[in-house]
Amino acid sequence: MTSSAFRTPGRATGLVSLVGAGPGDPDLLTRRAVRRLQEADVVLYDALVNPDVLDLTGSAQRIFVGKRAGRPQVQQDFINRLLVRAARRGRNVVRLKGGDPFVFGRGGEEALALVAAGIPFEVVPGVSSAIAAPELAGIPVTHRGISAAFVVVSGHAAEAYSPVLSTLAPQSATVVVMMGLASSASIAELLIERGWLPSTPAAIVSGAATTNARVWTGTVADLADGAGESAGEAPATIVIGEVVSMGAILGAELAAPGERARSTSEALGTAAAR
Amino acid sequence: MTSSAFRTPGRATGLVSLVGAGPGDPDLLTRRAVRRLQEADVVLYDALVNPDVLDLTGSAQRIFVGKRAGRPQVQQDFINRLLVRAARRGRNVVRLKGGDPFVFGRGGEEALALVAAGIPFEVVPGVSSAIAAPELAGIPVTHRGISAAFVVVSGHAAEAYSPVLSTLAPQSATVVVMMGLASSASIAELLIERGWLPSTPAAIVSGAATTNARVWTGTVADLADGAGESAGEAPATIVIGEVVSMGAILGAELAAPGERARSTSEALGTAAAR
Repeated sequence: MTSSAFRTPGRATGLVSLVGAGPGDPDLLTRRAVRRLQEADVVLYDALVNPDVLDLTGSAQRIFVGKRAGRPQVQQDFINRLLVRAARRGRNVVRLKGGDPFVFGRGGEEALALVAAGIPFEVVPGVSSAIAAPELAGIPVTHRGISAAFVVVSGHAAEAYSPVLSTLAPQSATVVVMMGLASSASIAELLIERGWLPSTPAAIVSGAATTNARVWTGTVADLADGAGESAGEAPATIVIGEVVSMGAILGAELAAPGERARSTSEALGTAAAR
Repeated sequence: MTSSAFRTPGRATGLVSLVGAGPGDPDLLTRRAVRRLQEADVVLYDALVNPDVLDLTGSAQRIFVGKRAGRPQVQQDFINRLLVRAARRGRNVVRLKGGDPFVFGRGGEEALALVAAGIPFEVVPGVSSAIAAPELAGIPVTHRGISAAFVVVSGHAAEAYSPVLSTLAPQSATVVVMMGLASSASIAELLIERGWLPSTPAAIVSGAATTNARVWTGTVADLADGAGESAGEAPATIVIGEVVSMGAILGAELAAPGERARSTSEALGTAAAR
């Protein structure tokens, strides 16, 4: 108490909120996320955050800490130190992350750093792209009689997905791969080797819930042939399983234009492009 | 067009919004979900929806279609017919579901029924309890160096979880079981049989994001011994994996009372009870 008062006279330590920004569309932020952005003194955000979401902040100082092409990524240790320093200066800090902060978002690492530094923090869950990206394309990750389970893996390294995908019984669950475009051929080959049907439906949803939404659909065999590598830039979510075929029925209706639903286009962005 | 005008003179078909209500706390609804509730003419909701969330509706007619103790569940076919009929009468309808509508929510079935009837619809993703229930207890479903994947299964029947859990390599992913209290001992035995360490940390989070939030922590061996069956009433989320041990560090800090964070208790409900 004394030493804290010595460091920041008259000002208590700020709160750090680890906030999920959802899949892109600012309308898919939670009410709590919006309030934290409006009240924040400092917002640290990464590359997956939609600029429209940042517009919800008031007068907060905005600090970009994501990857930018051609530049080295800001080190996690450095981000942790920024969070701690700002909070010690009495600032309310929002650490804004695409999707949910605890799904491949390193939110856990930041939370541990805050605990170690004695900084009060909270986690504000967000709508995860793992579920919402397929959903906005009309693909439910679970569906009675088709899939009673789903698996979410990171595609960034074989060590991350291989233990799961090389053992999981073929066709037993919907497989969702995040950050997996570059490894989609390897992943598809792994599944086929494990006994998955090459004809299993697959989809790649990129830019979900933004005006750049795109949906590719095909099969696991197509992915093995390299379809994913040509699907463009990340962020993209790959979905594999029989549920993908529902997207052909539901996605088309969700995306139908004109007099249908004032809000479906709003909900889908231009996933209508499928 | 003519026949539609004949059915509902002067009134276009309404929109059906399949809306995720999130894990409980009304502050974890998305902005779009709130707007749809405010604009709705009719809201159909089930037992998992927090009453505080319903208070966000304006003058909408509210229809309970969930399970109630001692009464038979409202049949899905009947719900589908209600949705179609209300929309044909020009009503804007919200079908409100706990968590996310496409995660064990039968949202896909309702969407198919709406497509078959030619009713415009949209899906509004919600914060899923599969991720948020552990998260609000300080447990990240993924964490670098500990878990790069997570599996979500329904615990309501062995056919649903057994194909996945009897094959998945031991300790290769965080396992999340929804609606699984009654089968938690069977699930734990299955995992141990498959080679999972009986000492693998496990948690049961019930009433996440409500004022009745409770967190139990133990091991897979404890679950096999029946700890889950005595954990009380559903809805509860079971989490199994090394990440659970992070809850002991992060959950305690998140739950700390008093001068800490005006908002942590708000975020956690009384998970502080752990």
